[in-house]
Amino acid sequence: MADRYELYYWPSIQGRGEFVRLALEEAGADYIDVARSDDGSSMLRLLDGNKIATPPFAPPFLKAGRLVIGQTANILLFLGARHKLAPSGEAGRLWTHQLQLTVTDFVVEVHDTHHPISSGLYYEEQKAEARRRAREFLKNRLPKYLGYFERVIAGNAKGKGHPVGAKLTYVDLSLFQLIAGLRYAFPRAMKRKELDYPRLAALHEHVAKRPRIAAYLASDRHIPFNQEGIFRRYRELDA
Amino acid sequence: MADRYELYYWPSIQGRGEFVRLALEEAGADYIDVARSDDGSSMLRLLDGNKIATPPFAPPFLKAGRLVIGQTANILLFLGARHKLAPSGEAGRLWTHQLQLTVTDFVVEVHDTHHPISSGLYYEEQKAEARRRAREFLKNRLPKYLGYFERVIAGNAKGKGHPVGAKLTYVDLSLFQLIAGLRYAFPRAMKRKELDYPRLAALHEHVAKRPRIAAYLASDRHIPFNQEGIFRRYRELDA
Repeated sequence: MADRYELYYWPSIQGRGEFVRLALEEAGADYIDVARSDDGSSMLRLLDGNKIATPPFAPPFLKAGRLVIGQTANILLFLGARHKLAPSGEAGRLWTHQLQLTVTDFVVEVHDTHHPISSGLYYEEQKAEARRRAREFLKNRLPKYLGYFERVIAGNAKGKGHPVGAKLTYVDLSLFQLIAGLRYAFPRAMKRKELDYPRLAALHEHVAKRPRIAAYLASDRHIPFNQEGIFRRYRELDA
Repeated sequence: MADRYELYYWPSIQGRGEFVRLALEEAGADYIDVARSDDGSSMLRLLDGNKIATPPFAPPFLKAGRLVIGQTANILLFLGARHKLAPSGEAGRLWTHQLQLTVTDFVVEVHDTHHPISSGLYYEEQKAEARRRAREFLKNRLPKYLGYFERVIAGNAKGKGHPVGAKLTYVDLSLFQLIAGLRYAFPRAMKRKELDYPRLAALHEHVAKRPRIAAYLASDRHIPFNQEGIFRRYRELDA
């Protein structure tokens, strides 16, 4: 079983690992979510040690045979090529990755709505700043990003509701996760705002119904949203 | 001249565009920094219009023949392969890109030291929050990132002071820019702190002396640091 992937990520949250899990699940790949079976101890050993020639800065990272690949978007670049979750030509591959890197940027901004000063401090220690940042986020940044992705789907000449080409790519899976997370974190704001993004809502629904994704979401491999991840629900931040 | 690259980026700052400029310069590539000749008007037209099949979310973006490529790290992935600024094998290519994505993460955190609440507000409107964020950044994040890159250089079995393999890659150029920017933005903090990262200081010196980079830095193609870019000097943030 040399080719079984090993995913390393915090075992109690969806976080950035979820973007990788969704790709592995949609691909029907053989993988183990390592930290969930040992509470993260082997992951921390790998992060702290010097046994990896290509040490990751932070989880998630993926062991694939002799490769150890870090950075969410980089892992998806790799998996996209291996499992046909992205076009194989250079132009399509770069465009898919470009969209994923914009997802990455958006995820940082979502995270920083509840941690605008430091990840090393508790939410309660930066609550006033979080309110201010979340207000700016909901007013300016969320519409800018979602409007962009909506336009990309609308402008895709090959149509069918996908952002890239005529088929599902890892970007569809990541946009599904963004919509799910935003609905969890900002239920009141999203109820109004998402009416402006019907193509993203339709994409979310489409991905949720893919047989492998539906099976994954119903399984205990899938961790529910909670107050430790990127998407957190604080009533006071949901204007 | 179908193959002359067109770089689109804000014409008055180094910003994220600088990471691309350094790669183009080191490659000796034929390129034009478009917005610097028309004050950004054609760039804004491209960003606002719907003429690009692969519309960028934000500058920088690079026109390369029929391709329009956005996201700094994605542009470098492309240029790295074309101009031998990265290893050609899959493992080396992914590792180089992984390091670049970690540079990307760091750049966001540097930017947010002076804009922790919103890019849409002036620094003066978020000065109190900036002080708090900058303090956390200098205490925790800067050592974490620089320590990581220092260890990567030290741990590179092929040695020679490069982070990847035995030759210069686009990551060397980006780390050069990080060190230069941090010295500009946080001169007091860096004076003490950078003593802990001798390999990064040596890399900075090495890159600055590369003939093409030295010529670029001395030319008027190179925009000096200023108070509009990612790296800004505010005395009160430089603890």
